[in-house]
Amino acid sequence: MSPQTDIKRIGILTGGGDCPGLNAVIRAVVKTGLLDYGIEAYGFLDGFDGLIYNRRRKLGYDDVSNILTAGGTILGTSNRANPFAYLEPGSGGEAQARDLSGRCVENFKELQLDALFCLGGDGTLTLAHKLGLRGIPVIGVPKTIDNDVVGTDVTFGFDSAVQIVAGALDRLHTTAMSHHRAMVLETMGRYSGWLALVGGMGGGGDVILIPEIPYRIERVCEVVEGRNERGKRFSIVVVAEGVCLPEGDPVVRRRVKESHDQIRLGGIGVWIAHEIEERTGIESRAVVLGHVQRGGTPTAYDRVLATRLGRAAMVEAAGGARDVMVGVQGADIRTVPLAEVAGKQRRVPTDCEMVQTARSVGTSFGDERR
Amino acid sequence: MSPQTDIKRIGILTGGGDCPGLNAVIRAVVKTGLLDYGIEAYGFLDGFDGLIYNRRRKLGYDDVSNILTAGGTILGTSNRANPFAYLEPGSGGEAQARDLSGRCVENFKELQLDALFCLGGDGTLTLAHKLGLRGIPVIGVPKTIDNDVVGTDVTFGFDSAVQIVAGALDRLHTTAMSHHRAMVLETMGRYSGWLALVGGMGGGGDVILIPEIPYRIERVCEVVEGRNERGKRFSIVVVAEGVCLPEGDPVVRRRVKESHDQIRLGGIGVWIAHEIEERTGIESRAVVLGHVQRGGTPTAYDRVLATRLGRAAMVEAAGGARDVMVGVQGADIRTVPLAEVAGKQRRVPTDCEMVQTARSVGTSFGDERR
Amino acid sequence: MSPQTDIKRIGILTGGGDCPGLNAVIRAVVKTGLLDYGIEAYGFLDGFDGLIYNRRRKLGYDDVSNILTAGGTILGTSNRANPFAYLEPGSGGEAQARDLSGRCVENFKELQLDALFCLGGDGTLTLAHKLGLRGIPVIGVPKTIDNDVVGTDVTFGFDSAVQIVAGALDRLHTTAMSHHRAMVLETMGRYSGWLALVGGMGGGGDVILIPEIPYRIERVCEVVEGRNERGKRFSIVVVAEGVCLPEGDPVVRRRVKESHDQIRLGGIGVWIAHEIEERTGIESRAVVLGHVQRGGTPTAYDRVLATRLGRAAMVEAAGGARDVMVGVQGADIRTVPLAEVAGKQRRVPTDCEMVQTARSVGTSFGDERR
Amino acid sequence: MSPQTDIKRIGILTGGGDCPGLNAVIRAVVKTGLLDYGIEAYGFLDGFDGLIYNRRRKLGYDDVSNILTAGGTILGTSNRANPFAYLEPGSGGEAQARDLSGRCVENFKELQLDALFCLGGDGTLTLAHKLGLRGIPVIGVPKTIDNDVVGTDVTFGFDSAVQIVAGALDRLHTTAMSHHRAMVLETMGRYSGWLALVGGMGGGGDVILIPEIPYRIERVCEVVEGRNERGKRFSIVVVAEGVCLPEGDPVVRRRVKESHDQIRLGGIGVWIAHEIEERTGIESRAVVLGHVQRGGTPTAYDRVLATRLGRAAMVEAAGGARDVMVGVQGADIRTVPLAEVAGKQRRVPTDCEMVQTARSVGTSFGDERR
Repeated sequence: MSPQTDIKRIGILTGGGDCPGLNAVIRAVVKTGLLDYGIEAYGFLDGFDGLIYNRRRKLGYDDVSNILTAGGTILGTSNRANPFAYLEPGSGGEAQARDLSGRCVENFKELQLDALFCLGGDGTLTLAHKLGLRGIPVIGVPKTIDNDVVGTDVTFGFDSAVQIVAGALDRLHTTAMSHHRAMVLETMGRYSGWLALVGGMGGGGDVILIPEIPYRIERVCEVVEGRNERGKRFSIVVVAEGVCLPEGDPVVRRRVKESHDQIRLGGIGVWIAHEIEERTGIESRAVVLGHVQRGGTPTAYDRVLATRLGRAAMVEAAGGARDVMVGVQGADIRTVPLAEVAGKQRRVPTDCEMVQTARSVGTSFGDERR
Repeated sequence: MSPQTDIKRIGILTGGGDCPGLNAVIRAVVKTGLLDYGIEAYGFLDGFDGLIYNRRRKLGYDDVSNILTAGGTILGTSNRANPFAYLEPGSGGEAQARDLSGRCVENFKELQLDALFCLGGDGTLTLAHKLGLRGIPVIGVPKTIDNDVVGTDVTFGFDSAVQIVAGALDRLHTTAMSHHRAMVLETMGRYSGWLALVGGMGGGGDVILIPEIPYRIERVCEVVEGRNERGKRFSIVVVAEGVCLPEGDPVVRRRVKESHDQIRLGGIGVWIAHEIEERTGIESRAVVLGHVQRGGTPTAYDRVLATRLGRAAMVEAAGGARDVMVGVQGADIRTVPLAEVAGKQRRVPTDCEMVQTARSVGTSFGDERR
Repeated sequence: MSPQTDIKRIGILTGGGDCPGLNAVIRAVVKTGLLDYGIEAYGFLDGFDGLIYNRRRKLGYDDVSNILTAGGTILGTSNRANPFAYLEPGSGGEAQARDLSGRCVENFKELQLDALFCLGGDGTLTLAHKLGLRGIPVIGVPKTIDNDVVGTDVTFGFDSAVQIVAGALDRLHTTAMSHHRAMVLETMGRYSGWLALVGGMGGGGDVILIPEIPYRIERVCEVVEGRNERGKRFSIVVVAEGVCLPEGDPVVRRRVKESHDQIRLGGIGVWIAHEIEERTGIESRAVVLGHVQRGGTPTAYDRVLATRLGRAAMVEAAGGARDVMVGVQGADIRTVPLAEVAGKQRRVPTDCEMVQTARSVGTSFGDERR
Repeated sequence: MSPQTDIKRIGILTGGGDCPGLNAVIRAVVKTGLLDYGIEAYGFLDGFDGLIYNRRRKLGYDDVSNILTAGGTILGTSNRANPFAYLEPGSGGEAQARDLSGRCVENFKELQLDALFCLGGDGTLTLAHKLGLRGIPVIGVPKTIDNDVVGTDVTFGFDSAVQIVAGALDRLHTTAMSHHRAMVLETMGRYSGWLALVGGMGGGGDVILIPEIPYRIERVCEVVEGRNERGKRFSIVVVAEGVCLPEGDPVVRRRVKESHDQIRLGGIGVWIAHEIEERTGIESRAVVLGHVQRGGTPTAYDRVLATRLGRAAMVEAAGGARDVMVGVQGADIRTVPLAEVAGKQRRVPTDCEMVQTARSVGTSFGDERR
């Protein structure tokens, strides 16, 4: 047993999108609580939904044995549930959003909990912070395959997603080479380009397009053509889903209109592939990886990182911390106030060492002028 | 050295789409030729294009060392090149198709080749057969991840694609379970459902839709809802890209019109996911795996199968066979006349043991009536 | 519901070594029973131990959901339990073996079971047959990563093990090449060389040693040296654990004595590596893969094969078959009397097409004379 | 082109054991040199051997294309070559070691090189530093799957090895559970326990034994038995190869003598498994992963890390740095004087956060007293 603590029972929930490593965090929180402090744990089901409707299960040692390697979350999650503006599941957009945060506070108190662990991305952490302001002692654990949470160098789940992206690029490489094609892979990343950047570097992308760096489609085509002329008759283009159509280009704008549905439905990757083929005559194909990036067993890296974060979160809670998030700073686990995290996004600095490194090994970001 | 042969030099080409195991076949053909018979090999580049334009390379022992595990084809391929109706690459659809099969015969003779190994799917094998009728002694090796070549129980590349499909389903399972969603995975398979069927069985699909079995979207939704009611709050739907929209349903036909672009661009999988969500209210997502299914290193199964087929093809050629394809029958490698293969497709028998097995473990094909 | 059956309740057990796909068989047996025939299933725990001591669990639909991809067996297994000559677990070798087969029959009857499904290798199937002679209607499902059960072309688990062996060889290749070493990989396979043969072919082994083909260590060294002289400064040797030391070689026999412990403990692979290094001066290393070959999630191929076998076994039982094993013959699932299977092993025919194919692509079996 | 540099040509060599990511470093060094500075690169073959005997190859852009994902090193390596005390390959231990460092300096000058990039572990980096003292401007890039180089938080290759260890543990888990066994996995790590620690945490090891933390075999057995009593009828023990036999225990010391060969040949893992079985009666098996941990394609993490280090090394060299090593500090790439690195090893701090985390989730290090 570690040093004493006033805490006796805690709750835990997972919010937002699926992410490899969630179960590893749950396991670490529960095991550390039980083994080091004798703290009991309850899991709320389906994110904030469980807190609102008091749907929960007791989490004992055996409940969290054997889940380290399992993808997904044993607690279920919900993308939508916002206790402060709650829309009934299945209700249309016209429905009135209700503030059910009071119920959360009531249920939390009724269960005589001493802390609430919220595992989630920016959205979940922001809601956690707001519940913190309502008096619930919350501890946040950042979670997103997008790696865009402020206050931490890296989030668990990111390495797994990077590995999946790089593995897909490995496969597409052989097809691109055999067919002398441009292959475009669209990755997740609505607001930040971390996954496209690091996955693209890991998979040897020739062009990487991320939301943070404005690109010109002409430059992308130039790179593909240039490779062709140098005898590299294939190209790999990685593009984050959050990358926009180029603006201010009248030719393109017209095209946008023509292919509006395509872009909305197929994603930017489909559009990029279409443009490359039309402008260069080089056969092009797009693959949109989609939810495959979110699921499945975490990499060893993410299992260990998630375990460290889960344990650190429990140690912090036991030590009396509240309204903080645990995160990675360099080689260490640190805490940061949720107030500094809520509502923000960590984007790729356009001149960071990662981007410079990618450029040095010949990767184009579609923005070079020669 | 094996028994004597009159054959001294052979050519080899790979046509049609990329497929794991092509290099393993090339390696086996060349090594068997050299080691067992002292036969020289030339590889034509980019499928029939190489034969037409006499672009080739000598293939010695070292050229085929270390390629067993490599995806793609070291010879390049071409989807389009038809020697009998050749369209210049990059030319528009209006261009006149030319018969360049004479050039193929000339180049083949000029190089003093004794046999031509054609590795490809239905299209390539049909063209090989036609070249055979023009006097070139051709040996076909069936290749397709779709597994739909007549005259062989299985084609190399299929097992690798099945493994990729099942692996993607494993990942989607965790997401589906955590989010209580229906996840729809669209696989390749334009004319036959083998990949969706076997990959879907390997990944535990709850619904599998294949071109050979007409489905009703109502039944698909019924299955998803039924699972939900029994507490299985997620469903996995696997659909081959060749599956069509249901016909004869006026409600659906209207919907088809509305979402025409969606279907064309996003594929049938996107449509199915859309329908499930709209009809059942259960959140649904689609993933279109695309070219990821074609590339990358073959499974051990495919490496071995490709090696066996490549070696058998050379043994047959050395023994004087021509205008045949090597294939798998049960545990054995056999030959079958190309004439029996050309222009046909092996589809899933709707009442075969595989389909029955899938039904027995609870998989729906969207056609059950209760 | 399928055609009627007199069968109402069945038992199922898994015996012998762990094998990927066991859970997939259990799932298929139980689901087919419930869905197609309304048959109830009970699982005996830890192989025949469970039958002897009546330790069992009811297996409902939910018990076998979500186990398709899981390695191991949810029922547990036992290597040792022989109902006809039972040694208490933990008892020394001197303990008296007892015949507890009567208890098996009693428990079977008491539970009012109509059939007993025995999943196992040669040992388990032989015991099943003996229980069959005692009146229990048994159905066998062959299981072994060694692929050496008579009456079936292939066993589930084999493909998974082959994939693991080939994957390990892929890794060893890069090490061997970088270090100019001979790398020896020892695979499982005490009596038959299937795993070393097919895994070795899948991983591009330069030498494959199997129990069925007597080798000379001099020839092995000759191959390694020959490669070195041709500029291939590395070699991959795959050896089945059941391969013996060469006999009749006085030099070797002396060496055997010196290194007795090494061979017993390190395995034949360690001895082969030692000999290569000592005789050729080329640095050599051995890896003994061990139990890693048995565990983990099955390949898609094995999941599907196991599902087919499990369903077929239930169909046969429902149809009144007894004392048979289900197996693969070519592309089909067939039954074969257990009497024909019991006590036999399927070994690699030394001149089979597989072996010939390996030779044709340059693999040595250590037995060539030049 | 980046800022100017006086450097025109550089040499690069890889020393010590194989490690995933070496080729990614070579690629990054060469590409950055060419693209950013117009610097030419030469690769020395087989580590310091190539420098001593002037065996080298020009490394152009195309030579390093397509090697990002390849395991091993395209330059070859040598474990033994020490320019300051050189033993001819193949010579016995009695041979006289010669100082050939002068040759290295001569060859370096003759080729008019401006910097020498040495990729290796502690041994290689120490030799690089000594060559630096002899006047060669050296830049070190740390490389080891053991992660024990001083001056960097992490080395490339480590993540790949961790992933392999965790993957093997995943497989062993199912076998251990099915058979109710203790499975012992011996990992690499002669002097430090990083790989066993992090791999063991990633694979959910119940006991982790590392050289830095003295253990008692009695405690290991206690843990295994304790789990058994709590109904967890299996245990996973991870042990680094550098872990010693317990000392000061007369019972053990006697046993040591008896099983001397076993330990030397089979490794500490075999001994641990033997002890567990003998002392607890619980069936135990050992697996020694061996060189499988070193080879094969790097994880995406290692590919990216290796690329960053390779590029940073070239930037440092171009900026005039010499006698330094590039390393990771937190999220950044930094340089550290080789003098601070040479001859040292970074061991696991016995009370570091990683070890504490492992303890918190229930892992034993064999040293607890209760």
